Amino acid sequence: MARVLIRNVSVLVVPESGECRVDEAQDIHIQDDRITAITPTGTPPPGAAADGAGEGEVVDGAGLVAVPGLVNSHTHSPMVMMRGAAEDLSIDDWFNRRIWPMEVNLTPERVRVGARLACAEMLLAGVTTFVDHYFHADQIAEAAIESGIRADLAPTFFSSAGPEAIDAAVDTARDHRTRGPRITASLGPHATYTVGDEDLRRTADLARAEGFRIHLHAAETDDQTQSSVDRLGVTPVQVLDRTGVLDAGALIAHGCGIRDADLPILEQYADRVTVASCPKVYLKLAMGTVTPIKGLRSVGVRVGVGTDGAAVHNTLDVWEALRMVALTQKQREQDAEWMNLSDTLRLATRGGAAAAGLADQVGALEPGRQADIALVDLSGPHCQPVHDPRAALVYSVRSSDVRTVLVAGEVVVRDRKLTRMDLDEVFTDAKDLAHTLVDLSQGGAVQHYAP
Amino acid sequence: MARVLIRNVSVLVVPESGECRVDEAQDIHIQDDRITAITPTGTPPPGAAADGAGEGEVVDGAGLVAVPGLVNSHTHSPMVMMRGAAEDLSIDDWFNRRIWPMEVNLTPERVRVGARLACAEMLLAGVTTFVDHYFHADQIAEAAIESGIRADLAPTFFSSAGPEAIDAAVDTARDHRTRGPRITASLGPHATYTVGDEDLRRTADLARAEGFRIHLHAAETDDQTQSSVDRLGVTPVQVLDRTGVLDAGALIAHGCGIRDADLPILEQYADRVTVASCPKVYLKLAMGTVTPIKGLRSVGVRVGVGTDGAAVHNTLDVWEALRMVALTQKQREQDAEWMNLSDTLRLATRGGAAAAGLADQVGALEPGRQADIALVDLSGPHCQPVHDPRAALVYSVRSSDVRTVLVAGEVVVRDRKLTRMDLDEVFTDAKDLAHTLVDLSQGGAVQHYAP
Repeated sequence: MARVLIRNVSVLVVPESGECRVDEAQDIHIQDDRITAITPTGTPPPGAAADGAGEGEVVDGAGLVAVPGLVNSHTHSPMVMMRGAAEDLSIDDWFNRRIWPMEVNLTPERVRVGARLACAEMLLAGVTTFVDHYFHADQIAEAAIESGIRADLAPTFFSSAGPEAIDAAVDTARDHRTRGPRITASLGPHATYTVGDEDLRRTADLARAEGFRIHLHAAETDDQTQSSVDRLGVTPVQVLDRTGVLDAGALIAHGCGIRDADLPILEQYADRVTVASCPKVYLKLAMGTVTPIKGLRSVGVRVGVGTDGAAVHNTLDVWEALRMVALTQKQREQDAEWMNLSDTLRLATRGGAAAAGLADQVGALEPGRQADIALVDLSGPHCQPVHDPRAALVYSVRSSDVRTVLVAGEVVVRDRKLTRMDLDEVFTDAKDLAHTLVDLSQGGAVQHYAP
Repeated sequence: MARVLIRNVSVLVVPESGECRVDEAQDIHIQDDRITAITPTGTPPPGAAADGAGEGEVVDGAGLVAVPGLVNSHTHSPMVMMRGAAEDLSIDDWFNRRIWPMEVNLTPERVRVGARLACAEMLLAGVTTFVDHYFHADQIAEAAIESGIRADLAPTFFSSAGPEAIDAAVDTARDHRTRGPRITASLGPHATYTVGDEDLRRTADLARAEGFRIHLHAAETDDQTQSSVDRLGVTPVQVLDRTGVLDAGALIAHGCGIRDADLPILEQYADRVTVASCPKVYLKLAMGTVTPIKGLRSVGVRVGVGTDGAAVHNTLDVWEALRMVALTQKQREQDAEWMNLSDTLRLATRGGAAAAGLADQVGALEPGRQADIALVDLSGPHCQPVHDPRAALVYSVRSSDVRTVLVAGEVVVRDRKLTRMDLDEVFTDAKDLAHTLVDLSQGGAVQHYAP
């Protein structure tokens, strides 16, 4: 590794609370994988050698805004292979007539090809960390490592697959801990409605004993919560509480069905429980509501922005997702002043970092943090004139405005090109295999949706 | 004018009802401003000279999808100059504390500079027609003509500005009829709550007498409708009915507050009344509801997709807007099967054409229609693999995927570059003047929002 200097760039400063701001004409100094200093352009960083020797690579930031690399707080990356293959369907039909029958077709190779495409899409769009939840997660790790992206990977399991499948998933998670600094591991029970209490309890015990976090779907819709109450007498959050999942530390995907009565429970674990919100999906599947972020924030639970899988979100575009969070939160609370520019940007950066279990490592551009940075070009006609760069980032920017991306101090996208992967080869492989993923002729399904 | 051949392109076919489809490997033959034939690649068009003489320009369509040029069914194009300058505000504050005080600063030059930037943004994004409603509309006409885009322009007026302003606006509309085939004219009373019944009646009489359509804001929110009922005893739609505006033929912007009881009234005028839906705005301003498209369609009223002005929508991106229509309609009706891919694409093309008063001229790729065409590149990682190109167009595509654009058979964007305008000059002018538009030091306001 080496030194990198991003010279003469505007820097998006995302504080832990309060207003974000953009500081113009800054130099970002990077040593190895970390930011060492951010100084006005041309000022030597504290402790720099006077002769500037060993300066390393210089990235010209003129006209660009440096943004903390976005975090995709919840996705199933290989599902890009099913993009556009399950449209205009109810949530029941989406699961039972398309996705779960299609997932009978999963193989390690197909998962890897999909994950490679997903990593390419995300890096080119300024996503530097993704929090994944899927099968054959060892293949997703390979793809992530190849691309240079950072990933927290939860090998997914259903109770219906039997204890061996759970053991295998846990073993995969253990193995991920050996895959280098950009890969972290979580445990991935699918959901409260597909994994029984005993298996959740066992997962939570393991997580506590070995220091894993747990990433799972829970309270995705009001209907799921009501069904849980009807069947079990408790809400999904109460299931997570009584099985020890919350105590172990959890990332709850969606949580649209979290009730006010669940909030005091979540408050007890606010230091280790986070929620990912993916609102494009909630509208597209007509799920009836969106994540109650205002309530979650009132009890100190941190929230990240996610895309969910591209089989429903169609993209892994976190710019699109963060915009949808702002819009749908204003709508939900009937308050145009709520979920303002600063809070929205904070969710997609610091909030995502917390969801990834990396709250102290990524999510902000500060000395000591990992150098995960997206350089964004606001010069397009859809952003001009720029009265407020924060507004441009939330409401105008497209992923195609991302020009250069660093992960852990390494340039992984330079001038809109991946530095580590051959995109044409990624496309060729994906096109060759895409039809095999969506083939419904095999019959069967990996699971049945009846929450 | 001349001949243009778009060779070996996939063609999005948007029928008047039923499923859209994409026909691969087609040639689109264009003579002067119109499509003359669409044939399988390499087949000569009916009646072609055997030697292919005088073929004119050939555009290589390989790997691209030809889409009917999108229609921005409701916007205030020069407001791009205020992009990002009025964020996180209630609708009352947005109007009364920012926009209407800012509009004191409007001058012909500033409007023209903004309209030029807006035309550039729209053309580069595949928008070939915009339906505009703003002040100094003669300047907007100049910008549109310079850029090559098609526009229907409604010079806007408030009753508070007095009868001379109304006369001047009507004179501008009359003048627009002399500005060539790509400019059409409507009359532009601002809204039912800012233009009195007498002025609406006079406008409707004039429209009928001279063959104008009327483009105005009405029933934007439930609150506006309730306020109208409380103050006047009738809904905004009833106001439009009793003043003759519906009978003259109207484009209603937004209509989120249209009630079920209004539908039988609108049904009587369904051949000449359309509605534009701009849902990003309804969420952002927390307006509480979105356009009741299902009800409008049930009585035969055609609906287009719009962006409204960039002072609230932040972009003039109709791809973004059509996606928001699909998502918010599914949410509104709690039905994931509603507003499917085909219906969404139809709204943004044929629906927009109807909103522009050009239902027989644009909005579909068919022989005899105007050659208004966007060539879209689905090869990006956010679109791949393409199981369904219609899904890619609705849920994955970004405006940056638009490669080449024709209006009336003329290439106005070639390989992502404007052919008629110097974009750098447009930017320079916009940046030079942007601060003058958002200056609140003058005091006053063009109007007060108290619907």
